[in-house]
Amino acid sequence: MSRPITLFTGQWADLPLEEVAKLASEWGYDGLELACWGDHLDPSRWDDDEYVQGRLDLLAKYNLKVWVISNHLKGQAVCDDPIDQRHKDILPPAIWGDGDPEGVRQRAAEEMKNTARIAAKLGVKTVVGFTGSSIWKYIAMFPPASQEMIDAGYQDFADRWNPILDVFDEVGVRFAHEVHPSEIAFDYWSTVRTLEAIGHREAFGLNWDPSHFVWQDLDPVGFLYEFKDRIYHVDCKDTKMRVGNGKNGRLGSLLQWADGRRGWDFISTGHGDVPWEDSFRMLNQIGYEGPISVEWEDAGMDRLIGAPEALEFVRRLAFDPPAAAFDAAFSTKTE
Amino acid sequence: MSRPITLFTGQWADLPLEEVAKLASEWGYDGLELACWGDHLDPSRWDDDEYVQGRLDLLAKYNLKVWVISNHLKGQAVCDDPIDQRHKDILPPAIWGDGDPEGVRQRAAEEMKNTARIAAKLGVKTVVGFTGSSIWKYIAMFPPASQEMIDAGYQDFADRWNPILDVFDEVGVRFAHEVHPSEIAFDYWSTVRTLEAIGHREAFGLNWDPSHFVWQDLDPVGFLYEFKDRIYHVDCKDTKMRVGNGKNGRLGSLLQWADGRRGWDFISTGHGDVPWEDSFRMLNQIGYEGPISVEWEDAGMDRLIGAPEALEFVRRLAFDPPAAAFDAAFSTKTE
Amino acid sequence: MSRPITLFTGQWADLPLEEVAKLASEWGYDGLELACWGDHLDPSRWDDDEYVQGRLDLLAKYNLKVWVISNHLKGQAVCDDPIDQRHKDILPPAIWGDGDPEGVRQRAAEEMKNTARIAAKLGVKTVVGFTGSSIWKYIAMFPPASQEMIDAGYQDFADRWNPILDVFDEVGVRFAHEVHPSEIAFDYWSTVRTLEAIGHREAFGLNWDPSHFVWQDLDPVGFLYEFKDRIYHVDCKDTKMRVGNGKNGRLGSLLQWADGRRGWDFISTGHGDVPWEDSFRMLNQIGYEGPISVEWEDAGMDRLIGAPEALEFVRRLAFDPPAAAFDAAFSTKTE
Amino acid sequence: MSRPITLFTGQWADLPLEEVAKLASEWGYDGLELACWGDHLDPSRWDDDEYVQGRLDLLAKYNLKVWVISNHLKGQAVCDDPIDQRHKDILPPAIWGDGDPEGVRQRAAEEMKNTARIAAKLGVKTVVGFTGSSIWKYIAMFPPASQEMIDAGYQDFADRWNPILDVFDEVGVRFAHEVHPSEIAFDYWSTVRTLEAIGHREAFGLNWDPSHFVWQDLDPVGFLYEFKDRIYHVDCKDTKMRVGNGKNGRLGSLLQWADGRRGWDFISTGHGDVPWEDSFRMLNQIGYEGPISVEWEDAGMDRLIGAPEALEFVRRLAFDPPAAAFDAAFSTKTE
Amino acid sequence: MSRPITLFTGQWADLPLEEVAKLASEWGYDGLELACWGDHLDPSRWDDDEYVQGRLDLLAKYNLKVWVISNHLKGQAVCDDPIDQRHKDILPPAIWGDGDPEGVRQRAAEEMKNTARIAAKLGVKTVVGFTGSSIWKYIAMFPPASQEMIDAGYQDFADRWNPILDVFDEVGVRFAHEVHPSEIAFDYWSTVRTLEAIGHREAFGLNWDPSHFVWQDLDPVGFLYEFKDRIYHVDCKDTKMRVGNGKNGRLGSLLQWADGRRGWDFISTGHGDVPWEDSFRMLNQIGYEGPISVEWEDAGMDRLIGAPEALEFVRRLAFDPPAAAFDAAFSTKTE
Amino acid sequence: MSRPITLFTGQWADLPLEEVAKLASEWGYDGLELACWGDHLDPSRWDDDEYVQGRLDLLAKYNLKVWVISNHLKGQAVCDDPIDQRHKDILPPAIWGDGDPEGVRQRAAEEMKNTARIAAKLGVKTVVGFTGSSIWKYIAMFPPASQEMIDAGYQDFADRWNPILDVFDEVGVRFAHEVHPSEIAFDYWSTVRTLEAIGHREAFGLNWDPSHFVWQDLDPVGFLYEFKDRIYHVDCKDTKMRVGNGKNGRLGSLLQWADGRRGWDFISTGHGDVPWEDSFRMLNQIGYEGPISVEWEDAGMDRLIGAPEALEFVRRLAFDPPAAAFDAAFSTKTE
Repeated sequence: MSRPITLFTGQWADLPLEEVAKLASEWGYDGLELACWGDHLDPSRWDDDEYVQGRLDLLAKYNLKVWVISNHLKGQAVCDDPIDQRHKDILPPAIWGDGDPEGVRQRAAEEMKNTARIAAKLGVKTVVGFTGSSIWKYIAMFPPASQEMIDAGYQDFADRWNPILDVFDEVGVRFAHEVHPSEIAFDYWSTVRTLEAIGHREAFGLNWDPSHFVWQDLDPVGFLYEFKDRIYHVDCKDTKMRVGNGKNGRLGSLLQWADGRRGWDFISTGHGDVPWEDSFRMLNQIGYEGPISVEWEDAGMDRLIGAPEALEFVRRLAFDPPAAAFDAAFSTKTE
Repeated sequence: MSRPITLFTGQWADLPLEEVAKLASEWGYDGLELACWGDHLDPSRWDDDEYVQGRLDLLAKYNLKVWVISNHLKGQAVCDDPIDQRHKDILPPAIWGDGDPEGVRQRAAEEMKNTARIAAKLGVKTVVGFTGSSIWKYIAMFPPASQEMIDAGYQDFADRWNPILDVFDEVGVRFAHEVHPSEIAFDYWSTVRTLEAIGHREAFGLNWDPSHFVWQDLDPVGFLYEFKDRIYHVDCKDTKMRVGNGKNGRLGSLLQWADGRRGWDFISTGHGDVPWEDSFRMLNQIGYEGPISVEWEDAGMDRLIGAPEALEFVRRLAFDPPAAAFDAAFSTKTE
Repeated sequence: MSRPITLFTGQWADLPLEEVAKLASEWGYDGLELACWGDHLDPSRWDDDEYVQGRLDLLAKYNLKVWVISNHLKGQAVCDDPIDQRHKDILPPAIWGDGDPEGVRQRAAEEMKNTARIAAKLGVKTVVGFTGSSIWKYIAMFPPASQEMIDAGYQDFADRWNPILDVFDEVGVRFAHEVHPSEIAFDYWSTVRTLEAIGHREAFGLNWDPSHFVWQDLDPVGFLYEFKDRIYHVDCKDTKMRVGNGKNGRLGSLLQWADGRRGWDFISTGHGDVPWEDSFRMLNQIGYEGPISVEWEDAGMDRLIGAPEALEFVRRLAFDPPAAAFDAAFSTKTE
Repeated sequence: MSRPITLFTGQWADLPLEEVAKLASEWGYDGLELACWGDHLDPSRWDDDEYVQGRLDLLAKYNLKVWVISNHLKGQAVCDDPIDQRHKDILPPAIWGDGDPEGVRQRAAEEMKNTARIAAKLGVKTVVGFTGSSIWKYIAMFPPASQEMIDAGYQDFADRWNPILDVFDEVGVRFAHEVHPSEIAFDYWSTVRTLEAIGHREAFGLNWDPSHFVWQDLDPVGFLYEFKDRIYHVDCKDTKMRVGNGKNGRLGSLLQWADGRRGWDFISTGHGDVPWEDSFRMLNQIGYEGPISVEWEDAGMDRLIGAPEALEFVRRLAFDPPAAAFDAAFSTKTE
Repeated sequence: MSRPITLFTGQWADLPLEEVAKLASEWGYDGLELACWGDHLDPSRWDDDEYVQGRLDLLAKYNLKVWVISNHLKGQAVCDDPIDQRHKDILPPAIWGDGDPEGVRQRAAEEMKNTARIAAKLGVKTVVGFTGSSIWKYIAMFPPASQEMIDAGYQDFADRWNPILDVFDEVGVRFAHEVHPSEIAFDYWSTVRTLEAIGHREAFGLNWDPSHFVWQDLDPVGFLYEFKDRIYHVDCKDTKMRVGNGKNGRLGSLLQWADGRRGWDFISTGHGDVPWEDSFRMLNQIGYEGPISVEWEDAGMDRLIGAPEALEFVRRLAFDPPAAAFDAAFSTKTE
Repeated sequence: MSRPITLFTGQWADLPLEEVAKLASEWGYDGLELACWGDHLDPSRWDDDEYVQGRLDLLAKYNLKVWVISNHLKGQAVCDDPIDQRHKDILPPAIWGDGDPEGVRQRAAEEMKNTARIAAKLGVKTVVGFTGSSIWKYIAMFPPASQEMIDAGYQDFADRWNPILDVFDEVGVRFAHEVHPSEIAFDYWSTVRTLEAIGHREAFGLNWDPSHFVWQDLDPVGFLYEFKDRIYHVDCKDTKMRVGNGKNGRLGSLLQWADGRRGWDFISTGHGDVPWEDSFRMLNQIGYEGPISVEWEDAGMDRLIGAPEALEFVRRLAFDPPAAAFDAAFSTKTE
């Protein structure tokens, strides 16, 4: 099985990176998708060569590689409106600053440029993250959100991200946006519109995380085929639907994770409704060559049980395609 | 068929009330659910007896009655956060004022008190409307919205609406909140929580509009049974699901109404997926005694075709229950 | 449209037959399926020629015909065990007698023989009814019901019905058992077994009433094809499923008819889940030549509204097959 | 209702055109989609001006128009392999000739050129038809059909149809291929491939007939959006699925039409499983401006009942979109 | 994994308890749910301290615990009507006696009191069992079962069980009724009604066995939440649905277990349609603290293969909830 | 586990039989279903005793048995029309000869007779294979395929296979036709018709391979019961459905195997949608006594991984039925 499987460290950032590396290595992961928070990776130190080398050395010590780094939390703040307590809770003080929304957005944008730079220093070709969105809050379409307001939101995204992507181009790194509710691209048609907004520039692609597709009734496998030239990374997170009793709503009822009354919930990879095997086979078909990264989120399960189990699950199904077609066996040429 | 059927005038407020009344009367509606916008009804004139009588006279002229009035647009502003352009577009200048959010909210709250007062003057027992919500924007739960933030949102709702409901109690009118995305109660579990937040006070009940239940996978019929003592009004709006091709998302993709790529859309009553007959039968079972009101919304159809067709549809299915059980015919007593 | 449509009078037996005939005639029914209870038809008077002619005259007065008569209530008592208050409520005193179960069963069996005899006198070829069952009560299979007990139930049925069917054969009339829960044949496999028990004798066939198939997940159309030589009559009764909210159970919860919490309920023909058009087309295919009879049962609707509406519904869909195949139009022979 | 509704005469070609025109006119159709068989229209007489004018006069006499003509039967023979008895049965002797397959194909191709020419003469911009296919017979993929064989089939199609389409271009008419099993394009992906094979030349578009999509599990509404610039015509034919009992197979079991054991069957428009209303709304959205044509096929129903009923059905649902959005009614601008 | 998993011995009562204990211990079960039949436990010996201690010693010898005992077979006879051969087959001679129904019922009731007493002596807090029902036989609602008859059945249950529950209260033990067809509470609404009938007294709770929910279309997970304060025990039995071919009926056709024509069948835990993982997670959420007991029933599989496999299945999914939420990892507090 | 599990060698015929035998033996298979192509088995050498014994010795060397042999490729050519390149690719030169279709058919028929003869020599009672079909190409029913043409196809089959089956009868071997698209019997109703065509002669039975049932919406378990006396062999091949996104068609779009856009695809046993466990249980019920053979086909997976995995999957679920019913444990007889 040649495709590498990595662990995304975002949900482990309360632990020191070394501890996470040790665990992942013991479980058999091939590498880490480093999160740019906790003590895992600090993009602002991108020109500190010693720091960068130190990170690589730490990974090497545990026989791990890094193909991708992630900075969801800062990307989120680039376009978001409103900027509120939720952002303060997940941003470092240097970016939150005085909390003035526009200032937060601009500092977050700078951080994303630095994330490209540190990626390049690490030899990493892909940065995964969120874009934020000034129009997500209009999702219910009431009070009425006009076409003009929606258009303005996509334009705001383009205006804020094009300068960031210029830096990505400069340093030869690509950004992989995670299609996700609360972001500028959160489903199929909004992804079409987002790519148009940014002129389909190559610096901007997609992180395919199917967990968000399931509860929106989207086909994650067809999505891979349709956007096959923009699949820059793959995150494995699973979702379990729990609608069907007439009470549990598709929107989750603002209930916390792991509450069984939510209409859907994140769940350990392989325990949910994502068609994993079909997805991995389609990744083979479209020629995706990167790693598969386990983004482990399940508020009802202990992560120390779940993370190694997820690795085993993915290894079993993410097999390589065969070299020859089976019809060959019928051929008279073999006689 | 004894249950009255009314037309909600909210989607007709670009026309003078008299024109709407004339149309509704010709089509055969029994009354109007008056919207408190356009020139239909102005709550701020609640103590102008002549104005109030004039409204009643106008309805009488067309042989129409009024059992319920509605003020969704102002109710929406009571709790909303952010307050933005969308609100400016739907609020009268006197309530928008300088647009300072907290001022808008307070002026909207005063308007809702006046709505109770004018209802009492009109002899109307029920006001339908929205509550707004300061936490709707957290629906995607990312960035993480803590239990504390959610709790604060329900508390904010209670703090803002209790004084309004006090006025409702004073004048003997009840508020019927329309369970609807972007409001404090938008599905089953959020309705449970909302009623708890307000101490289950009788002044606060529900406007059952099943269109919002369909795309959230909620059971509108079971909802009637569960909240049978809080069903204060019934609005007929229908929803057509258009998911199932893997591309049209359950959230609507921020596409405008009538775009066939939306995963769901409002549609003329009887053209969609609401189980109307079962619903009307359950209304009979729980003893709901009010009118059924057609809230006509369908961006792909002409309302002049749709409104009379919807009336005919509802009349055919909203029949009264029979007097006796059919098993009586098997009884030997009849021999 | 040549196939006659009749009204089954069983659910109208609280009214005098003349009143029912008058209503049915006004609505446009072609005939009546006479129930052998109320004052509609009394099998014990089978050899009273004046009585029999009087019934025919009454129908003729309203331009109605009779192709089939029904005696569900007495047939039910032939095999049932226990015999209890429910039977007392639906049986005439002469059959109930002292209520001793075996006596009731035997008097009911005699009544069924008389029903065949009066059918012959009326010129009617088919008697519809129930068989009762001594093993229906074992349906949950707990406490364990052994194969021997089940076998004994089918044998009891054969032992009790063969002598009755001998009379049917004598007078040239056929019995059409309504496949129905609480009877010896209530679904597909129990019908197979029942026909075996009775040696597939021609006197015993089936009354196809699809309402009971719907909630058991049976295919009513396929049933017609499989038992095409045993379809002796067709009753139109409809069923609406109301499961799907996790609470309403498939068994009905012992709730009364028209309670919206039942997982299924009888409903006016055309308002439920029976695939009527496919069924009528299959009746054409298998060459069924008898009438279609509306057995109107809907505890949530007024029968005076429902019965004419059901007639209109059936007339529209129970059309004759065409004379020629449409492919003929492609043929070069026509050039 | 401004969109014209026409009747396709292909299934009526056993009748003289005048008789069909008379019927269609009485029923209220706006025009006819003329079939090029029976006596309806003979493409070989394209340069006989008197003949052409005679056809137009006949239509005018019954107040009917013609926007589209059809030649499925001859188009079928252009690519088919094998050419057999089935073709002989539907081809005129002049085209069948000695039945040598290649000769048949070439004469059929000439006929299609003439069909373009007569369309031009009639002032018609669109010819509907089939292409035939040399690779349809490989549909089960056993014995193995290699990629090379499949590729050759698409190439054969392009080689045979490009010269025909050249004539279409010359005379300013477009060909609308009906996506249909047994043709070169029979589903979504084969349509993609077919359009590629022909270089997306504008002369070649699609006749959208959703009946063939239903039993292949294709989304007919999404198809309209995806190929919105290639929808040249619309035929209304409906399909009823009858799988679900484990016996009726999706492929139809080689049973004749109207046999209820087929897993699917053609059925009168509105009696089947096509989402007609959503489809008509999508036609509004994509700006389709042509007629909607009823292609009536239902082997279980009399066409004299079905054809007027289908017209009424389509008229009721194929309504025009409204002029303004309903949200306008919420605007404060109206106050 | 801290939650204990036990084996219910009811389906093993043909073996001596010691043999069952030996097997269960070898397989790794934590304890036994002792059945009060076979030689496993004899409630009539509740005041024989030596006997009671002997049972505990036997379990201790195999390192097994007992948290719950079960007496389904005797509980069944408390309310059942009719009492027949099926009961004779499963009751000990001392309770069957002369078979007079009322005598059987009363002796069964005494046995249930003794079961509470022996539970107390064993240090066991919960007795699992059936109630029987005098109205189950009315499930098909024909002949008509009036509301009065149904009411009388619930009253009969209360009258017979309240004295039994008084003894439970005396000795500090609770009764957990298994919601099951043929019992007084067999689905959601009948459970609501049953709890009302008994005044919601705390001595009467529920044994959640989801196998009976599956074929009735009930939501077993929602049931746990709704009755969260009455879930006194959990039995794992699974059900496989086999409807869907139009022939296999939802009621099972009175066919024996393991006949593949039944519409549903009991099956080894994990082989059926129960949503086990969601259920176990909900048990965590509602704070259920008792054991999970495997009630192994599968007439198509060898129990010596099935019982250890079921244990492994349950162990893998019935994991403990985590200590902290994963969102903690996003917090800036960790930096 | 007593039922033997074999590997069908058809998809391994590019390897020498000895290599396949070695692999299968190492993986734990009990035997081989020998394919009559590659070097695996040559029916033309049926009277070469040394050759036959050599084959048996080779199997014995690897501790493998043979219960069944297969000759799909030659059987295919017996009835097929057209005979084309696809056949040339899979037939040996001796049978293809000059490629004249009728000659190919007759030589293929001779080969099938020899296959029966070599089976008898090997001590094998069953030959599995295809029949071919002259009417499969009419599956789309356009151009119209008349009932006469279909009838002729079944007659052609009978005419060609009866002489072959005569040889089967002579040597005491049975033919098991694999119900499969492109064959004379490809679904339920065509199997009914095929058995009629051949007079239900015992020499002709069925090879149950459920992979072809899945995408045709057939019930593979019910099929076993219905044709229980004609199930002569069982092949395990699985199918994964990939419709549901509105684009992937049920017919496969003439795309090659392993293309994720196909609406269905063959997949390694246990990875698809076949209800394996229910099927194996039904095989127990109907008394099928032969081997279960893994026919491994999955163009997206390496067969060296898939074949042993499939064996493990089948072993786990194809268990024997138990000796006694579990209800026995409730019996008072054990006390």
